[in-house]
Amino acid sequence: MAPGSAIEDLRDALKRLPGVGPKSAQRMAFHLLERDREGAAEIAEALVRALSKVAHCRYCNNFSESEICRICADQRRDQQLLCVVETPADLESIEQAGAFRGVYFVLMGHLAPLDGIGPEQLSIGRLKRDVVERSITEVVLATNLTVEGEATADYIASMLAATGVRLSRLARGVPVGGELEYMDSGTLTQAFEDRRELPRS
Amino acid sequence: MAPGSAIEDLRDALKRLPGVGPKSAQRMAFHLLERDREGAAEIAEALVRALSKVAHCRYCNNFSESEICRICADQRRDQQLLCVVETPADLESIEQAGAFRGVYFVLMGHLAPLDGIGPEQLSIGRLKRDVVERSITEVVLATNLTVEGEATADYIASMLAATGVRLSRLARGVPVGGELEYMDSGTLTQAFEDRRELPRS
Repeated sequence: MAPGSAIEDLRDALKRLPGVGPKSAQRMAFHLLERDREGAAEIAEALVRALSKVAHCRYCNNFSESEICRICADQRRDQQLLCVVETPADLESIEQAGAFRGVYFVLMGHLAPLDGIGPEQLSIGRLKRDVVERSITEVVLATNLTVEGEATADYIASMLAATGVRLSRLARGVPVGGELEYMDSGTLTQAFEDRRELPRS
Repeated sequence: MAPGSAIEDLRDALKRLPGVGPKSAQRMAFHLLERDREGAAEIAEALVRALSKVAHCRYCNNFSESEICRICADQRRDQQLLCVVETPADLESIEQAGAFRGVYFVLMGHLAPLDGIGPEQLSIGRLKRDVVERSITEVVLATNLTVEGEATADYIASMLAATGVRLSRLARGVPVGGELEYMDSGTLTQAFEDRRELPRS
């Protein structure tokens, strides 16, 4: 594989995929060229198609092929109730669970100053404007319960405080099916602090 | 991400890469569309270019953009000494070490009947023809020292026995810099069996 050859270029290009180093990239290039040329053509085609078709929904910022995505366009959903998530995958999990009937705002990440991802990159200014303009009544902060997710939720909460909108955060506690024996102490502490009073019979 | 959408198609296409499952494919699609559209275009382009340009060297079966690759075309190399390797990466390692001055035959894999890779897929018939037609004097079997590599070397050795060509296999032993304490017993046994007599001073 001489430098500048088509194979070397392919190997270098594949290294741009997240989590793919030089060895994996070489293995992928080899596999595609030797065992799956059809797959290689399919990937190239899917990339070109996605690049030309996929943009962001004007409202929720999720990936969408139309100006307004299916969820935002659905008038049966509560358009005043807004759920803020980090990624499209998070949104999909919530949809699959049927856990929420409002609309979303997808940050496309979380605050990570060291990686150059600040409030600007997460469109948090736009979120604030939307909350006011669309008369949102409640914002559910559904970022991950990780350090970064918590920091992002905190930041958004402080940004939105001035708007007077009702703010909420996902409940913290023991997951359904969870066994106390294997729960970390942070989760247990939270589950005790946020314990729910049972109705008196 | 609705089924049949450009993103879903991209995610499905990326799953064809070796070692990439649904979660990784989703992460890759997300990364490319959100953070590296330039990279996505680069990958698509490199794939298309490699598919159209890269074929196999007529002699050594390695990937090549010309009918005969740089190594096979090099008249300073010993064209009667043939080294059989499994993959282009193996060939590259040998070249980088400067360990060999003959020419190669690249099997593009090893025998793996369960994956449908038999002698036919490895062009072993063509290798046999080449050995005769090109009056090769010695074939160095440099497949990996794994179970599959050994089986492949054994098979090729039995195929070439009738041609009367000299056959050799890479030496087995303790790697340079290797510490006996950490060597597996197979390697140690082999290193004792193949021990070299030192010249008497």
